[in-house]
Amino acid sequence: MLKTPYLLFLGDAPDALAAKVAQGIRDWRPEHCLGQLRLPGCKADMRLPDMTVAEAAAKGAKTLVVGVANRGGIIGPSWIAALKEALAMGMDVASGLHNLLRDEPELVAAAKTGGAALHDVRLPSVKYPIATGKKRTGKRCLAVGTDCSVGKMYTALAMEREMRTRGMKATFRATGQTGILITGEGVPLDAVVADFMAGAVEWLTPDNEPDHWDLIEGQGSLFHASYSGVTMALVHGGQPDALVLCHEPTRPHMRGLPDYRLPSLEDLRDVAMRLAQIVNPAVEAIGVSVNTSAMSEEEAMAYLADTEARMGLPTVDPFRYGVGRLVDKLI
Amino acid sequence: MLKTPYLLFLGDAPDALAAKVAQGIRDWRPEHCLGQLRLPGCKADMRLPDMTVAEAAAKGAKTLVVGVANRGGIIGPSWIAALKEALAMGMDVASGLHNLLRDEPELVAAAKTGGAALHDVRLPSVKYPIATGKKRTGKRCLAVGTDCSVGKMYTALAMEREMRTRGMKATFRATGQTGILITGEGVPLDAVVADFMAGAVEWLTPDNEPDHWDLIEGQGSLFHASYSGVTMALVHGGQPDALVLCHEPTRPHMRGLPDYRLPSLEDLRDVAMRLAQIVNPAVEAIGVSVNTSAMSEEEAMAYLADTEARMGLPTVDPFRYGVGRLVDKLI
Repeated sequence: MLKTPYLLFLGDAPDALAAKVAQGIRDWRPEHCLGQLRLPGCKADMRLPDMTVAEAAAKGAKTLVVGVANRGGIIGPSWIAALKEALAMGMDVASGLHNLLRDEPELVAAAKTGGAALHDVRLPSVKYPIATGKKRTGKRCLAVGTDCSVGKMYTALAMEREMRTRGMKATFRATGQTGILITGEGVPLDAVVADFMAGAVEWLTPDNEPDHWDLIEGQGSLFHASYSGVTMALVHGGQPDALVLCHEPTRPHMRGLPDYRLPSLEDLRDVAMRLAQIVNPAVEAIGVSVNTSAMSEEEAMAYLADTEARMGLPTVDPFRYGVGRLVDKLI
Repeated sequence: MLKTPYLLFLGDAPDALAAKVAQGIRDWRPEHCLGQLRLPGCKADMRLPDMTVAEAAAKGAKTLVVGVANRGGIIGPSWIAALKEALAMGMDVASGLHNLLRDEPELVAAAKTGGAALHDVRLPSVKYPIATGKKRTGKRCLAVGTDCSVGKMYTALAMEREMRTRGMKATFRATGQTGILITGEGVPLDAVVADFMAGAVEWLTPDNEPDHWDLIEGQGSLFHASYSGVTMALVHGGQPDALVLCHEPTRPHMRGLPDYRLPSLEDLRDVAMRLAQIVNPAVEAIGVSVNTSAMSEEEAMAYLADTEARMGLPTVDPFRYGVGRLVDKLI
């Protein structure tokens, strides 16, 4: 678990998109964000106080989080000085980059000097068990998608926030790098060894109070030829009581697979429900979450209304209209 | 790929079952077996010439294969001398044990001395790609099961042999330790990192001649809460043209999961077909393979006849009656 509060490192982000990890932390865990560190040329801005490493350390920052990604997921040479300074002052450094912190000898040395930790959240840090399939106490909701990157993480985070606002017991359970950096903990499921995937999801969503909900971040899609095995482990390890069906209606083909069209929401419902029933016969599809960002307001409203009528389920765009109606259905 | 011919190492196997890996190699690749090496107290016998390491080396053995497993999958202390001797004489050593050859300093040193290789087939030795989902040339048949350990490997190996006997082009594709030791190559799928599972299966079953069949060894089950993600990757990475449905009718519950009953063959057919259609709309379920070893001859014949009538598919026990009728259906 990452120590808070954070200094968000934006580096020399060439645009806002390059700092989307920092933006996610800022949006969903503002209470963890003490300040931001921007290098010359940085075009991203989280509207947090700008701080040097020393200023952040003096104000109690415990972890510098690399909230920026550049092409190839490497650690920018211009970043090293700031990361070393933070480590030498005893601040941990966390990153979800492909290029690992632990593979940089300068950072390893600085961490040793400062007694600080390097957190490469892309790799598992736990020896996960084999899944047992045993029924656990508490409730679980899993976001499944017609494709990768259709809004599963956003939907689960929005539901967690809505439920907490209502005084419900709810925990977002991160299964990818960005989600882990946002919440400070989780399982980097795509990097787990095959035999332990479902066990890692069980580990992530343990026994809980009867009225507690885990909101499990989905990964991939049961219909995505490259990653469906990961999604399957989420369905069987997560033992969901509720499924939210996520979709992006304007995408011409499955992400990265030009020969594959997206399935319909009906197909997703039927396949996901059948597979989830293996581990929880009482599972229900409780609603639909659509990313309508590529549509006009009018198109979006019409699409949501049509889908709701067709599927017979509350259908929302969480970004435009919130997830209140999905949470209503959970209760 | 392991170098042949092999010296099968049976160690001090307390019974025949402990040497089942050696038995698999003996049964399915007798042409690769030069001899066997048994230590005092060994109760297994492959009916191969008994040889010392030096005799096997003199006769041209290229790899000593550890064909025995003991409780916990560790390397027996009494085995080390023979393994060291083989390595020092330039013979490779291959093992599927949990306990790795490469973690034994004595073996590493002997391998260096002899210029020999240590093959831990339990771990991947290849950096597999992400799956592309692209259609490949050639044909593929995948064995899927209602549970783990219901005869998927046996069925695929028997089909390969039957097809080769008929002069057809057929290759068994191993996806587990035993299969890899039997054929000398393959992918240890359960040890592959999640993101690369389907890509590993694509890598294993590449473009081929139009009339060539890959017989892909199945793993786990789509209905097994612990391992279904691995099975899913086989279905989507393998892009099967044909599915064989495998079953063991007397099992009281899913292997290792006391709370889970086995699905019916109809359930298996429906779920596996639906998922396989995502990557190959023309996929067909071509037959049923039943392990009736726990039944009398009469019970077995009645069960197979009933199942065949119910499913409308050729139904065989490959061990009792061969797989000729499954191969007939493939043609």
